[in-house]
Amino acid sequence: MSFPAETEGFQVDEAGAPPDFYRRSFKLKPVGDYDVDIKIDACGVCGSDVHTVTEIVGRAVRVGPKVTLVKVGERVGVGAQVYSCGECKQCHEDNETYCQVNLINTYGSQWPGTDIISQGGLASHIRTHEFWVFPIPESLSTKSVAPILCAGITAYSPLVRHGAKKGAKVGIVGIGGIGHFGIMFAKALGAETWAISRSRAKEADARALGADGFIATEEEGWELFHRCSFDLIVNCANSSSGFDLARYLSLMDVHGRWISVGMPEEEGQVIKAQNLVSNGVLIGASHLGSRREMLDMLKLAADHGLEGWVEEVKLGEEGLKEAIMRLKRGDVRYRFTVTGYENVFG
Amino acid sequence: MSFPAETEGFQVDEAGAPPDFYRRSFKLKPVGDYDVDIKIDACGVCGSDVHTVTEIVGRAVRVGPKVTLVKVGERVGVGAQVYSCGECKQCHEDNETYCQVNLINTYGSQWPGTDIISQGGLASHIRTHEFWVFPIPESLSTKSVAPILCAGITAYSPLVRHGAKKGAKVGIVGIGGIGHFGIMFAKALGAETWAISRSRAKEADARALGADGFIATEEEGWELFHRCSFDLIVNCANSSSGFDLARYLSLMDVHGRWISVGMPEEEGQVIKAQNLVSNGVLIGASHLGSRREMLDMLKLAADHGLEGWVEEVKLGEEGLKEAIMRLKRGDVRYRFTVTGYENVFG
Repeated sequence: MSFPAETEGFQVDEAGAPPDFYRRSFKLKPVGDYDVDIKIDACGVCGSDVHTVTEIVGRAVRVGPKVTLVKVGERVGVGAQVYSCGECKQCHEDNETYCQVNLINTYGSQWPGTDIISQGGLASHIRTHEFWVFPIPESLSTKSVAPILCAGITAYSPLVRHGAKKGAKVGIVGIGGIGHFGIMFAKALGAETWAISRSRAKEADARALGADGFIATEEEGWELFHRCSFDLIVNCANSSSGFDLARYLSLMDVHGRWISVGMPEEEGQVIKAQNLVSNGVLIGASHLGSRREMLDMLKLAADHGLEGWVEEVKLGEEGLKEAIMRLKRGDVRYRFTVTGYENVFG
Repeated sequence: MSFPAETEGFQVDEAGAPPDFYRRSFKLKPVGDYDVDIKIDACGVCGSDVHTVTEIVGRAVRVGPKVTLVKVGERVGVGAQVYSCGECKQCHEDNETYCQVNLINTYGSQWPGTDIISQGGLASHIRTHEFWVFPIPESLSTKSVAPILCAGITAYSPLVRHGAKKGAKVGIVGIGGIGHFGIMFAKALGAETWAISRSRAKEADARALGADGFIATEEEGWELFHRCSFDLIVNCANSSSGFDLARYLSLMDVHGRWISVGMPEEEGQVIKAQNLVSNGVLIGASHLGSRREMLDMLKLAADHGLEGWVEEVKLGEEGLKEAIMRLKRGDVRYRFTVTGYENVFG
């Protein structure tokens, strides 16, 4: 079987607003024995940055001679990371998304020993190691499963790692691309699930997604009924402006976990040990999730019929530009999926 | 048995430098059925603030009619907290030092329903509920066990709650009153124990206390050999000036815990989710430890022959003033214990 050296896709030259997309040819990584070539059918669009268009669903069209995890013709997904060293302590402990040795993102990372930069999912094909390629359960539709591979796993991993389960009270701050999966998964994992948002504008959506309760932080005294009661809050907000962290932290039970997965670009928060001591809250962040968690999450989604709430956008200069502009306004419920690849690439 | 309303002791009027101590009479809390009166023999002196002279060892001299945990004549200790509500979820889950309802410190708290302020251990007697009174194992000497009741438990609780055990790599930042117990306990709990200090001045002490390794943070590249390797670091430093938190956090393995027990008075640290994401480190703080942990710690100390490294200071205006002045210079290895109560109070 012959593996092509190049593929075709859409690129931006700088992340301006609005960015312009250009159709070009670019190199795929050199073929390895464990590599899979995927012909892309759909790609989710990340919330804040055009650079991270990296939730890919497609068909495996070629596999290297040592591939055992994927079959040609199988429908598969790729998330926001496509490689790690595979040899370090972190990789051996299902923490490959925290690999300190060689972490390759799906977009914008240089493949080691080459001058080839990973190009994401706005392309005809993508190639990577089978470990980073995930079979998609049959019952999940291509367009609505795409965002599960980045937004979904970003919410799922901290939920399972930090105790979302029956008997736990879990909050999701920020109902957007990541947060809407957070609500679905927290509920599916059995937790008492609260959506936390500035206003009540998204309350009906949150309850439809599975939230047992809703907190609007623009309301006076919003935190008082919930002090020292949450076991876990996953903070999916992508802005920290006007964010009074101390009030949020007062929601946490002893040693509760406040885990951020949104990455606001504003200045950080000033934290003193004194602010953490009255309940011993733990503050952390989370990065994607392991292969094992990805497979568990896909099974959970299939078992519970959970799919992303997506709006479709057609692949091409115009559709992509519009999607990015709407994203910057927060005008999407709750994720864009790019489709129409066959019309562009045949 | 008649319970007195008052006791005698030393007070400061303001925490100036140097503070003046005055011998006065003051009220004990009203007697409750579960209360124990203790005649004080020794008291540890906290690292940074004269207000927290609250590590008490003495003899139970009177017990209320419902007391079952303490016998008259028994040698007992009292730590830095003397009461919590006992009824809330936190109290029921061995988190009474995180009680949000009614947390009474050994010094400076107002007893509910009274105008009586708790006065600490520079006094002839102290009275509190038996739950907060801990029998002292016979093998531990009064003067060296006193600081275990506040400094010791402050180090011990985060160690056991956050995973110090065989197979774990644990660091103790700051070798002082709390940190020197941290090293002893981490080692006794079976962890690979590293002392972390600015210079190597305390290296010999740290190794004598049980440290397997020593890191001096004034040395170039100190963090590089230890990146992503610590499971837990208990930060006992009581100053954060010049503290480059990001370098310390880079020491942590995935989801490692960075737990602060020192409470520096400087401005806090600015933290962004971005700084926590490469290893998913969890940042927290810790407040004393539960009764159950206190008893476990005293047993561990007795089993391993662990005692505080203390310098004695004699009770009285002069001795106390000198101790506070030396403390402010950091001139103590590693804790003062006030003794000589019988000479003052008979």
